[in-house]
Amino acid sequence: MTDTIFLKIISGDIPCHKIYEDAHVLAFLDIGPLSRGHTLLIPKQPAVMLHELSDETAAALGRALPRICRAVMHATGTTAYNILQNNGAIAHQAVMHVHFHIIPKYAEDTGLRMRWDSMQLDPTEGSRLAKAIADELMA
Amino acid sequence: MTDTIFLKIISGDIPCHKIYEDAHVLAFLDIGPLSRGHTLLIPKQPAVMLHELSDETAAALGRALPRICRAVMHATGTTAYNILQNNGAIAHQAVMHVHFHIIPKYAEDTGLRMRWDSMQLDPTEGSRLAKAIADELMA
Repeated sequence: MTDTIFLKIISGDIPCHKIYEDAHVLAFLDIGPLSRGHTLLIPKQPAVMLHELSDETAAALGRALPRICRAVMHATGTTAYNILQNNGAIAHQAVMHVHFHIIPKYAEDTGLRMRWDSMQLDPTEGSRLAKAIADELMA
Repeated sequence: MTDTIFLKIISGDIPCHKIYEDAHVLAFLDIGPLSRGHTLLIPKQPAVMLHELSDETAAALGRALPRICRAVMHATGTTAYNILQNNGAIAHQAVMHVHFHIIPKYAEDTGLRMRWDSMQLDPTEGSRLAKAIADELMA
């Protein structure tokens, strides 16, 4: 994995507006926020994508998320928010180090805006695909 | 919290294309997928939004996420994906029970499509806000 701005933030070589830090994770404000209070939560483990994380790091990120959401809500007054974590350049990942976005939503036209072009799952294909994924989990 | 379709899926009253289940979480295919392999990961703890989750449930969700992502990637062949978790109706939450979306991205025009209207964080406001959120975390 290449050096990223997030590794430099973890090491302290680049400053950040820090919110939280423990042995496994670091949280700080996004300097290009989609809304007020837009926060990033990153693992200290150097990994590009989520599926590369160790169980220990992944559990630490999971545990930190609700705590940080509560603090962001209390400090900003927001009652709605989106959690987003992008993997791969075509999936809108801009920094090649795992990061969770916590994006407050103050009104329909603030924060994260999405298009939701959903399809319908064919039941036969669904059964086949669910089994294929479940089999991979057991492998 | 009101009864939701996800509680009925957890209880087995409504069937699903199940991928994974343990004491804390359940994963299954979204029947209205944004792309092939679109998977939902939910806690068994009945909670509407992420910030309501216990540390134990949140850690279990965090730990399960990379494992399920790996299995979805292997079964579908995708190399990019988005993790999305919406809290509140204005943030696009449709079922009022916490759920993480795992959405494979096969090409620019598949899966989750977003608008990214970022602003610039004012350094003074950033320092003030980061301290306010950090103070809430310690409270």
